[in-house]
Amino acid sequence: MERILIRETPGYRGQPVRVCGWVNSRRDHGGIVFLDLRDRSGVLQIVCSPNLAKNIKEEYVLDIIGEVRERPPKMVNPDLETGEVEVEAKEVKILAKSAILPFDVKEDLKLTLPTILDYRPLTLRNRKIQAIFKIQEEVVASFRKTLKTLGFTEFQASTIVPVATEGGAEIFHIDYYDYDAYLAQSPQLYKQIMVTAFERVFTITRAYRAEPSITTRHLSEYTSLDAEMGFISSWGELMDTCEIVIKNIFDNIEKNCQKELKIFKATLPKIKSKIPRLKMREAQEIIFKRTGRDNRKNPDLEPEDEKEVCQWAKENYGTELIFITHYPTKKRPFYTYPDPDDPDYTLSFDLVCRGLEIVTGGQRIHEYKKLTGNIKEWGNKIKDFEFYLQAFKYGMPPEGGFCLGAERIVKQILALENIREATLFPRDMMRIDKRLAILQPKKKSKK
Amino acid sequence: MERILIRETPGYRGQPVRVCGWVNSRRDHGGIVFLDLRDRSGVLQIVCSPNLAKNIKEEYVLDIIGEVRERPPKMVNPDLETGEVEVEAKEVKILAKSAILPFDVKEDLKLTLPTILDYRPLTLRNRKIQAIFKIQEEVVASFRKTLKTLGFTEFQASTIVPVATEGGAEIFHIDYYDYDAYLAQSPQLYKQIMVTAFERVFTITRAYRAEPSITTRHLSEYTSLDAEMGFISSWGELMDTCEIVIKNIFDNIEKNCQKELKIFKATLPKIKSKIPRLKMREAQEIIFKRTGRDNRKNPDLEPEDEKEVCQWAKENYGTELIFITHYPTKKRPFYTYPDPDDPDYTLSFDLVCRGLEIVTGGQRIHEYKKLTGNIKEWGNKIKDFEFYLQAFKYGMPPEGGFCLGAERIVKQILALENIREATLFPRDMMRIDKRLAILQPKKKSKK
Repeated sequence: MERILIRETPGYRGQPVRVCGWVNSRRDHGGIVFLDLRDRSGVLQIVCSPNLAKNIKEEYVLDIIGEVRERPPKMVNPDLETGEVEVEAKEVKILAKSAILPFDVKEDLKLTLPTILDYRPLTLRNRKIQAIFKIQEEVVASFRKTLKTLGFTEFQASTIVPVATEGGAEIFHIDYYDYDAYLAQSPQLYKQIMVTAFERVFTITRAYRAEPSITTRHLSEYTSLDAEMGFISSWGELMDTCEIVIKNIFDNIEKNCQKELKIFKATLPKIKSKIPRLKMREAQEIIFKRTGRDNRKNPDLEPEDEKEVCQWAKENYGTELIFITHYPTKKRPFYTYPDPDDPDYTLSFDLVCRGLEIVTGGQRIHEYKKLTGNIKEWGNKIKDFEFYLQAFKYGMPPEGGFCLGAERIVKQILALENIREATLFPRDMMRIDKRLAILQPKKKSKK
Repeated sequence: MERILIRETPGYRGQPVRVCGWVNSRRDHGGIVFLDLRDRSGVLQIVCSPNLAKNIKEEYVLDIIGEVRERPPKMVNPDLETGEVEVEAKEVKILAKSAILPFDVKEDLKLTLPTILDYRPLTLRNRKIQAIFKIQEEVVASFRKTLKTLGFTEFQASTIVPVATEGGAEIFHIDYYDYDAYLAQSPQLYKQIMVTAFERVFTITRAYRAEPSITTRHLSEYTSLDAEMGFISSWGELMDTCEIVIKNIFDNIEKNCQKELKIFKATLPKIKSKIPRLKMREAQEIIFKRTGRDNRKNPDLEPEDEKEVCQWAKENYGTELIFITHYPTKKRPFYTYPDPDDPDYTLSFDLVCRGLEIVTGGQRIHEYKKLTGNIKEWGNKIKDFEFYLQAFKYGMPPEGGFCLGAERIVKQILALENIREATLFPRDMMRIDKRLAILQPKKKSKK
């Protein structure tokens, strides 16, 4: 008999079925045993004789043949999608046994985050945790679908790079045969190269940052949703496109993830028609006036500033998102386009959502001479960028792009406290799967 | 005026339009200049006065306002999608200039592969080269779409790993803060963990192999299309699923990439109803009988064997694909399921297409004890696999999976000689973008 999914059982009343899954719970009631069976589609009550259920414990994997029957009205469970039915087991086959669980995985996990991550293969069986990654899947799928509709081509970016593209020390070194190589901090240079062939491109890739500190917002490896487009008529077009992408992500989650949102009692960030756009210096002024906190000379917004400016946007525009624009030229990478009206600031933007930056983007320098000038001014060697520079030497249209942090978007939608919750297998300076201090000794070559 | 794509111009006869793109070629005919303008959608003839076209050279990026007019019947170019029309330029704006090209990029590139790769940002402007990556995009999109239809969940795999998962020396080392880490040779262990939560999963990720030699089939970084499924009723189900995926890839390319196939004069590999399945030892027997080449004691098929067995399949089954099954237990990773009827061989398979392996897969050991036994027998430490083993300790259904090499599939479809042609930015022991010997000195710490 073909296996059916648990979600499908209500359509088989009075019929024999085969269902498979994990034992979510076991309840013994005198001469009868109730098992809750869990598969990828849902949970189902199985009624067993004590003999058939002998030795069966939580998380055992079962293959059950039985009959679907309607529950008596008093026994209907409205919290369960299959709550009107149950399966009376005729045959029970144990596909795999389970060790005794260290904690209960079916309810709200009352565990610290380090424990949740130490036991990730087990805690992933929890419905609430699964919901996080269903949302993440939808974020990625929506990003892709929107850009395909807008004429973008998807490409596969390389992550091994010959030089540090964005500058800075926060880069991982690889022993690459007899040479040195690094893990890409972003697919930036490659997506720009791709513009000269396909005009509009995107990639879903891993990006790496050797973050020397532990925060709730940073990961050593994250999922970067990167887009780049040529022939822009103005840099505002980049924010327009980004806005379409973000709105579609929210709309698709609203449409396809009601169950998951409900588990978290989460609501999607509000956007009123258009996301407001505010210069960084203006934002700092507003923050100063509102709080007396004088960060007006800072080169970037502090985390507390991002929260405050979102609060301001909410009060004044009824929106939980805001574009902050015109970051200082010196604080952005060499390829960022300076504002022609005020070259100390750039045509760059961050999209801040509920107090956290979830997108960064901007127009890029497409003029060969200007770009080579900046590479030198930023302290880099032209030689290291010769490959990339070909794209500009032979004609690059005005262009720009943006990238979304998939984990950050999920974090903000579900109001998770730590970005690690929105990452299946988070990597940071203390952890690769398990805590590194437990897993391996420190390297001898370093302190 | 809004820019329109070149492909759309035949719908605007007699009307003013704005088009943007690169100058594919320039032809001066006395008092008139013909420019072929190229954008992401096609090529279009622009008619210019010498004054408007002054100084304009190949690969200049232009923004043109003009009028679409029908060409006289004698002047229609049947090789061009827009061949019935041309645009008479009224205004020409240069968006970017180009240096003199080192070679012609519009026609069939008569360049060696190293030169094509050294100049990748420029050679990517060639239509034939672009076709390769349009096909690759379709391979990836089809893989994803088919698996979503079959109830699989997409996840984002981590590529920084704490131990060498597949064993062997072909692994890149990373300086990971104060610890050691490696680049994942495959997402294998993580997709298995994911099965205990979502049953059926897939990921599109980068995989890394420190291949110490240069071949036409291997890359140091490649795109791995990885799927894994639980609750299989037999390991044949894995090949059935793989077959659906492969057939859909071919069908979608047939449907959506006619233009690209035509450029390469390529035809898709033939499959007759069902892909034949043959044990490795049987294949070696057949090869011995056909060629006298006695590789019957080899633990794997040689490249020439894979070609021969494909030839045999073509002659006997009219198919260009064949599953080779039952590879020796000792030659496969520790997690591969031994055949219960003959434990020296495994329930594993490769899919060989036109003489090259494009998929590898098999059933995995899902029993905790058997798996820990194998980890030890393969010379690994249980401690290094404790995280992964949680998935099995707490109940794992019978499961298995497969992975497709995206670049290899493209290579075989288009009959490319070298897998580097099917990779945007190939990495190998000699190259990251540019040849490493040119780019940087050898590391001092090594020979």
